[in-house]
Amino acid sequence: MSTVRTQVAIVGAGPAGLLLSHLLAARGIESVVVDQRTREEIEKTIRAGILEHPTVELLDQTGASPRVKTVGNRHDGIELRFEGEGHRIDFPALTGRSVWLFPQHEVLIDLIEVRLAAGQDLRFGVTVDRVDDIETDRPRVFATNPDGSPLEIEADFIVGGDGSRSLVRAAVTGSSTGGHFREYPFAWFGILCEAPPSSEELIYSNSPHGFALISQRSATVQRMYFQCDPETDPNAMSEAEIWDTLQSCVPGTTLQEGPIFQRDVLRFRSFVSYELRRGRAALVGDAAHTVPPTGAKGMNLAVADVVLLDRALGALLNEGDERLLDRYAETALKRIWKAQHFSWWMTNMLHLTPEASEFDRRRQIGELRSVVESEAGRTYLAEAYTGWAFA
Amino acid sequence: MSTVRTQVAIVGAGPAGLLLSHLLAARGIESVVVDQRTREEIEKTIRAGILEHPTVELLDQTGASPRVKTVGNRHDGIELRFEGEGHRIDFPALTGRSVWLFPQHEVLIDLIEVRLAAGQDLRFGVTVDRVDDIETDRPRVFATNPDGSPLEIEADFIVGGDGSRSLVRAAVTGSSTGGHFREYPFAWFGILCEAPPSSEELIYSNSPHGFALISQRSATVQRMYFQCDPETDPNAMSEAEIWDTLQSCVPGTTLQEGPIFQRDVLRFRSFVSYELRRGRAALVGDAAHTVPPTGAKGMNLAVADVVLLDRALGALLNEGDERLLDRYAETALKRIWKAQHFSWWMTNMLHLTPEASEFDRRRQIGELRSVVESEAGRTYLAEAYTGWAFA
Repeated sequence: MSTVRTQVAIVGAGPAGLLLSHLLAARGIESVVVDQRTREEIEKTIRAGILEHPTVELLDQTGASPRVKTVGNRHDGIELRFEGEGHRIDFPALTGRSVWLFPQHEVLIDLIEVRLAAGQDLRFGVTVDRVDDIETDRPRVFATNPDGSPLEIEADFIVGGDGSRSLVRAAVTGSSTGGHFREYPFAWFGILCEAPPSSEELIYSNSPHGFALISQRSATVQRMYFQCDPETDPNAMSEAEIWDTLQSCVPGTTLQEGPIFQRDVLRFRSFVSYELRRGRAALVGDAAHTVPPTGAKGMNLAVADVVLLDRALGALLNEGDERLLDRYAETALKRIWKAQHFSWWMTNMLHLTPEASEFDRRRQIGELRSVVESEAGRTYLAEAYTGWAFA
Repeated sequence: MSTVRTQVAIVGAGPAGLLLSHLLAARGIESVVVDQRTREEIEKTIRAGILEHPTVELLDQTGASPRVKTVGNRHDGIELRFEGEGHRIDFPALTGRSVWLFPQHEVLIDLIEVRLAAGQDLRFGVTVDRVDDIETDRPRVFATNPDGSPLEIEADFIVGGDGSRSLVRAAVTGSSTGGHFREYPFAWFGILCEAPPSSEELIYSNSPHGFALISQRSATVQRMYFQCDPETDPNAMSEAEIWDTLQSCVPGTTLQEGPIFQRDVLRFRSFVSYELRRGRAALVGDAAHTVPPTGAKGMNLAVADVVLLDRALGALLNEGDERLLDRYAETALKRIWKAQHFSWWMTNMLHLTPEASEFDRRRQIGELRSVVESEAGRTYLAEAYTGWAFA
C-alpha cells in the first residue's frame, strides 16, 4: 500500500481534471490527477471539436493549450441549412466573437504536456475503487496502481472529473446514476474520412432524410455525421451507403468523398447529476452532466465548471473560506441548465424525430425560418453557440 | 329563391371577413358578407384581446376600427414570471413597437358599424349550406335566410372566413377537417371578474402549479386564465377554489379578487388547413388555421391573411391578374407556420405538461432564463409578440 498526501485529488485526466490541476497550480495548490486509461488512449480518443470563445481565451491566456490558437482554426460562423438553402450565422457580426475548431484530444495532448512539464503528479492506468470520508476534512481515494498494488490518496478535497460513468458521483449523490435525464430516439453516425473539406464552416442540415453535420478536421481529414437509429451497427453500412445517406441529408451541397477510416455511433443523452457537491467532494464535466452533441457544449461546459470550482477551492484552501464552495452547485447549475436547454433546442430544431407528424415537421421549418430571418434570433443562437461569459 | 350577384361572397362576419369587405370596398370591389350568427351574438362573444402593432396600425389607418387607439390600451410590455420572479419584456425598448389590448368583440362592434354605415351588404342569421362551382369563374354560395327561404349568392370569388368549423374549407380541401394538427394535454380555465387590475401589464406565469395569464379588460373588469385539464367542467369549481388555484400559479403577486361573472374552458389546438385556396375560393383566419392562445396570434394572423388576400383580389378583379392569388397560399403559409411555431413555443415554455419529467421542468426554467437574460432573446420574443411586418 502506497499512500500519497495532496491538497486536491482529481479523478480523471480529461479536459476538466487536467485544466483544474493547471489552474490550481497557478494558485499554489497542489494536486494529484489519476486516470484509469493510458496516456495514449486519452490522446487518441476522438471527441468534440468546437471550443467556445471563453474556453479558447482561458486555454490560451493560462497557457493550458499553447497550440489552441496556432493549430486550431477560428470559425466565424456556421450554416443552418433547411429546405435546401443555407443560412449563415455570422458570429463576429452578431456577437463580436468566434469559436475555434480544435479537437478535444488536441487540447488533452497540450494539457498533458504542460502539466507534466510543470511537474504535475499525473498517474495513468490507475483505477479508482472508491472514495471515502468525503464528509470529513480528510477525504480519501482508494485505487489500484497499474501493477495491481493498492494506492491511497489522502486529500483536503476530491474532484470527480471521471466522465459520464463517474465513480466519484456515486459518493456525491449516494447512488451510481442519480440524476435528471432524458434520452432521444436517434443517434449520430460519425465518420472520419480522407477528403478535402466540403465546406469551410460547419453545416447543420435539417432535411426530410434527417439531420447531418458537415464538420472539418484538417485540409485532408473530415468529420461528418448523420442522424441514425441508436441501434445502428456502424459496420453494417458500406462506404457507398454512408455517402449516399450523408449526401441525401445535405441537399444543395455536393460532398467531397474519400476513404472512411473511422466510424462510430454516438448515442444521445441529456443528464444532470442530482448533486454536484457533498462535503469535500465535487463533480465537474461529464461526471456532473451530459449533453447531446448538437450544441457543441460538452467540453465547454466542463471548462465552465472548472472555472467556478478552481475559484472555490482557492478560497477554501488558501483562505479557509467555504462560501464560494457552498455556492458552487447553485452557480454551476444555472449555466448547466441553460446549456441543457440550448443542446435540447438545437437537437429538436434540427433532427427528424421518428414520431414527428407533418405538423411538427412544418412547425420546425417555421422555427428555423423565424430564427434565421431575425437578427435577434440569429444573435440569440450565436450568443449561446459562441459561449456565455463565465459567471 | 332569392339570388344575389356580387364580386366577392364572404362567408363569416368575424374580424377576417368584415375587414376584408372593408379593404375591398376601398378598392371599389363590392362584396356580400353572411354569417349564421346574429349581430348580438357576434358582438358579445369574448375572444382574444391582444392586437399586434401592424394590426393596430391597419385598423386605425383604414378606419376599420375608429376606437382601437382611443378606447384600446397600449401595452408596452409583458412580464414573464418563473421561480417566483417577474422579468419584463420591454417592447418599445427592444423593438420600437407596442401591442394594444382591445378585445376582439370591440373590434367587431367597430367593424360592423363602419361597414353598415358604408352600405355594406351584411346579412346575419344566414346559414350557408354549401359552396359550389369554385373551379369555375362563377362560384356560388347556397344558403338559407333567417326566415327559412333559400338564398343563392353568385360571385367572382368566395372567401371562407367562417371560423374553425369552416364549411368553405370543406370545398377548398375536399374534406371537412383536412389539415395538419396537434392537440395539447391541457386547456385554459378563463374567468371574467369584477375587480381592479392585479397588474398593469399581462403576466405570463410559469409555476410548479401550472401556467396562469393575468390579463386586463378595464379598470373594473379583469380577464384571467389558469391551466387546467381539458375535461374540466367550468361550473364544478367554487369561486374560492378558482382564486386559490389562480393565486397558486402566480407566486410573488397578490391577486385582486372579485365576483366572477363568466367562466369558460378554452381547448388548445394547433391546425393548418391542407389547402388555403382552390380555384375561385380561399380561406382566411380560423377557417385556415387555429393557434393555441398563448402567443396571442389568432386574430392577428387572420388580419395578415386578409392583407394578402385583399391585394390578390384587387389584382384579380381590377386588373385580371391572377399572379398574386396564385402565390396567396405560399406567402400566407410562411407567416402562418412562424406563428404556429411562436404559439407552440410560448405554450411549451410556459405550461406544465402532465407527462413532463423533472428534467423537462428544469430545462424549461433554463430556457426561460436564457431568454430573459439575453437582450437578443428578449428581442426575438418581443418581435414575434408585437408582430412581424406584413409581407
